[in-house]
Amino acid sequence: MIALSFDYGQRHRVELSAAERVARAFGVDDHRVVTIDLRQFGGSALTDEIEVPTGRGADEIKQGIPITYVPARNTIFLSYCLALAEVCGAEDIFIGVNAIDYSGYPDCRPEFIRAFESLANLATKAGVEGKSRFKIHTPLAEMSKADIVNKGMELGVDYSMTHSCYAPDESGRACGICDSCLLRLKGFKEAGAEDPIVYGD
Amino acid sequence: MIALSFDYGQRHRVELSAAERVARAFGVDDHRVVTIDLRQFGGSALTDEIEVPTGRGADEIKQGIPITYVPARNTIFLSYCLALAEVCGAEDIFIGVNAIDYSGYPDCRPEFIRAFESLANLATKAGVEGKSRFKIHTPLAEMSKADIVNKGMELGVDYSMTHSCYAPDESGRACGICDSCLLRLKGFKEAGAEDPIVYGD
Repeated sequence: MIALSFDYGQRHRVELSAAERVARAFGVDDHRVVTIDLRQFGGSALTDEIEVPTGRGADEIKQGIPITYVPARNTIFLSYCLALAEVCGAEDIFIGVNAIDYSGYPDCRPEFIRAFESLANLATKAGVEGKSRFKIHTPLAEMSKADIVNKGMELGVDYSMTHSCYAPDESGRACGICDSCLLRLKGFKEAGAEDPIVYGD
Repeated sequence: MIALSFDYGQRHRVELSAAERVARAFGVDDHRVVTIDLRQFGGSALTDEIEVPTGRGADEIKQGIPITYVPARNTIFLSYCLALAEVCGAEDIFIGVNAIDYSGYPDCRPEFIRAFESLANLATKAGVEGKSRFKIHTPLAEMSKADIVNKGMELGVDYSMTHSCYAPDESGRACGICDSCLLRLKGFKEAGAEDPIVYGD
């Protein structure tokens, strides 16, 4: 198994250390980080000089596409996954998108994932030689955040190792008020569990 | 208009200077070069320590997918184009793939391009808000290399500024014997025109 993370100019670059910790904890010996500069394009609160919205209610989060949407980001991520999978002879690609408690990003929706899977099987040798067949797996897509929290605990995830915040402070502490923190906190609350990470002031 | 080139670890990196010259000659004032490291994945004669095949006949070139195929390369290229287009509010993306006198790459085929266009309109705000609609244009897709040479001359392309070779020598001169050079030379021959670039020994 290969784990792939992206250093794409995101504000919350600290998520890469969290990915490294989690990968190590689960015995993934090949964790790669691909650097892609999406700051040169900008256009998102995650990669540009645009403020991350905070304190929004659950209904507000679900309305429209927020400014934290990074144009074509998951398309770029999956393209790199596809390249690596083809080089390594892997057919199964997993991505942790969620389409229930999420921010309305177009590239988290099941129809996007299905379209990418079709594309993957036309874009590569698989489409011509028919020897392999790529499958894009989205185990978290149809789960609520509470379900995800519960499933993680069942599987032994140490959530103190994880990171979700879009706008952490300098020491990497989560803000507790961006959409991502709010969705995470709501998930823990609904799961009746306590979020072990430390939030900033 | 924005021209986008990719510095992806290709052997024939000299093509980037050619792209810059051609863009300038045609008054494109915004020519961007995105650096993406496909060498870290390898798996192709263009990005890895694998020899570029030479001296192959036209029939041989058309048989199967050659080792110069770079896994998922055009998917990655188009994903970046899509990101930039969405940020800039552009709807028209042009790519110079060819599916007639080509090397059998899966990601040059019309069905791949159509699949990417569908994906583009699901992956982005266009797919949710329905305000814009991306179109992938492939003006060269159904033309023979001879047709392309003729069309370029009609449009005033100075072919001495251009580069096609996969394995240029240190001074950037084309080898004349890789598949790309052979397809180019065949195109000029069939067009009854002389290729103005200088070939190596």
